[in-house]
Amino acid sequence: MTQFNETDLTAAVVRSFDDTPDPRVKFLMTELVKSLHDFVRRTDLTFEEWAYAIDFLTRTGHKCTPTRQEFILLSDVLGVSMLVDAVNHREREGATQTTVLGPFYVGEHKPMSHGTDISAGIDGERMFVQSRVTDLVGKPLANVPVDVWHADDDGFYDSQKPSYDKNGPSLRGRFITDADGRFFFRTILPCSYPIPTDGPVGEMILQTARHPMRPAHVHFLVNAPGYEPLITHVFIDGDKYLDTDVVFGVKDDLVSKVEKRTDPVMPDGKPASAPWHLMTYDFRMKPGSGAAPQPMMPAKENA
Amino acid sequence: MTQFNETDLTAAVVRSFDDTPDPRVKFLMTELVKSLHDFVRRTDLTFEEWAYAIDFLTRTGHKCTPTRQEFILLSDVLGVSMLVDAVNHREREGATQTTVLGPFYVGEHKPMSHGTDISAGIDGERMFVQSRVTDLVGKPLANVPVDVWHADDDGFYDSQKPSYDKNGPSLRGRFITDADGRFFFRTILPCSYPIPTDGPVGEMILQTARHPMRPAHVHFLVNAPGYEPLITHVFIDGDKYLDTDVVFGVKDDLVSKVEKRTDPVMPDGKPASAPWHLMTYDFRMKPGSGAAPQPMMPAKENA
Repeated sequence: MTQFNETDLTAAVVRSFDDTPDPRVKFLMTELVKSLHDFVRRTDLTFEEWAYAIDFLTRTGHKCTPTRQEFILLSDVLGVSMLVDAVNHREREGATQTTVLGPFYVGEHKPMSHGTDISAGIDGERMFVQSRVTDLVGKPLANVPVDVWHADDDGFYDSQKPSYDKNGPSLRGRFITDADGRFFFRTILPCSYPIPTDGPVGEMILQTARHPMRPAHVHFLVNAPGYEPLITHVFIDGDKYLDTDVVFGVKDDLVSKVEKRTDPVMPDGKPASAPWHLMTYDFRMKPGSGAAPQPMMPAKENA
Repeated sequence: MTQFNETDLTAAVVRSFDDTPDPRVKFLMTELVKSLHDFVRRTDLTFEEWAYAIDFLTRTGHKCTPTRQEFILLSDVLGVSMLVDAVNHREREGATQTTVLGPFYVGEHKPMSHGTDISAGIDGERMFVQSRVTDLVGKPLANVPVDVWHADDDGFYDSQKPSYDKNGPSLRGRFITDADGRFFFRTILPCSYPIPTDGPVGEMILQTARHPMRPAHVHFLVNAPGYEPLITHVFIDGDKYLDTDVVFGVKDDLVSKVEKRTDPVMPDGKPASAPWHLMTYDFRMKPGSGAAPQPMMPAKENA
């Protein structure tokens, strides 16, 4: 008879997956059980701690709505999301580094002409963004759609605001690279912002005396046929949270020196009201394929 | 600057807990992150698998209500609940083995006189349960409250039935040991039953080709002052699911040979309509202390 005691319990649970039809599911369940049991054994988890964990997970589930994903936020602040990104992008020598998609991508954006101001009248310091999309040896890639999105001066994305449905998108757009692989647009300088802290993840951040901040960044999704889709951020150098991003999304290569300028014209020759900022960042695409990512949800409240 | 890449990401997340005021919380978070990251690295988890996990956890949370606890069920079928029980009961030499409380304990039961039939008219084969509570050397423990509860012939607990509030408890009661440490009662023979399979846990059971069954058992909670509270089941020998209990709750010492009898009287001298079953199981208490467990919830639908 099977004796389900401490020493052979893990083996018994693993054995229960013996008949799993899909070998990958069997492997994942086996490794999951080993990891969970190992955690309980290493920590001598008490009944009270187990009960707290059950309650925490339940509340995390209850916080999830069609426009709020607390489990993704939990995955983010535990570094799991970035690790999944990392293990799926091990060989990117010479290519632009990746980082998390985040929950504020809302799907393909509306194409706009180069130089468009995507700030839709939102207050903030002016910024001109210029970029070039190339392959690994610098050959320009033309006609490539590039989705961009970022938070406003108060740290909110358009989709987090109650006025989103009425006012339509802001700080969000799509640009198609020209024959030289270039695209450029106007916007405002984003700032660092806190993830939502009114749920169980916020409680965990508080209990561990962490701060809830993300350093200022602009999201880019570059999707060139024949190349791996590139999902990344460009961070703004000097931000005080670069070293301690609450979701661990920063990589050195993704930090851009944003220059303060006083020139009366911007790089496209059109007039500027001084001072303004210039972000220059080029993307190097890795040959490959793959579908562009789908947004996880309609995206309103998360990181 | 911190580089959050694959190799040092785990260290960065662990470092984020440096200022955690409570050392136990810091330890648990650190070990949790190590376990989770180790799992992702060992499995090279894909984006699709990560997204499935997020969705699975979200649906598990949404399945939880004040009377249904899908996360406990998940913990149960992954053997985590039994492992927590095991690491908290390492030294029980000579004492009765423990197993999971389960979600159908509803708190202290109504005291009943010895010999009471707790079946409240529910159909099933008749059973007489007799038991003695002693210390580790066999000294009887008098005046000890013992809560008992079990499922009916169809596998349901009273609290799972819509009629529960109206009809009050059945197959559930409290007995106080006599001067010789004894208690006894009448009931029906329980049968093996499936855990609820209409949620994400059922989906997982299906995908891994496991069965959802628990072998027949009676729950006991023995709470003697000066002794560790004993939470356990007594399983019925011969049940086909003893070796493969879906929640891994079986221990050899907890299996009782339930005898089929045809005597015209039961052990307390009162008449029996043949045939009937006799369960004899004694409990040996470990010196110690501790509060009796509280029910996790009002308890309706779970294992």
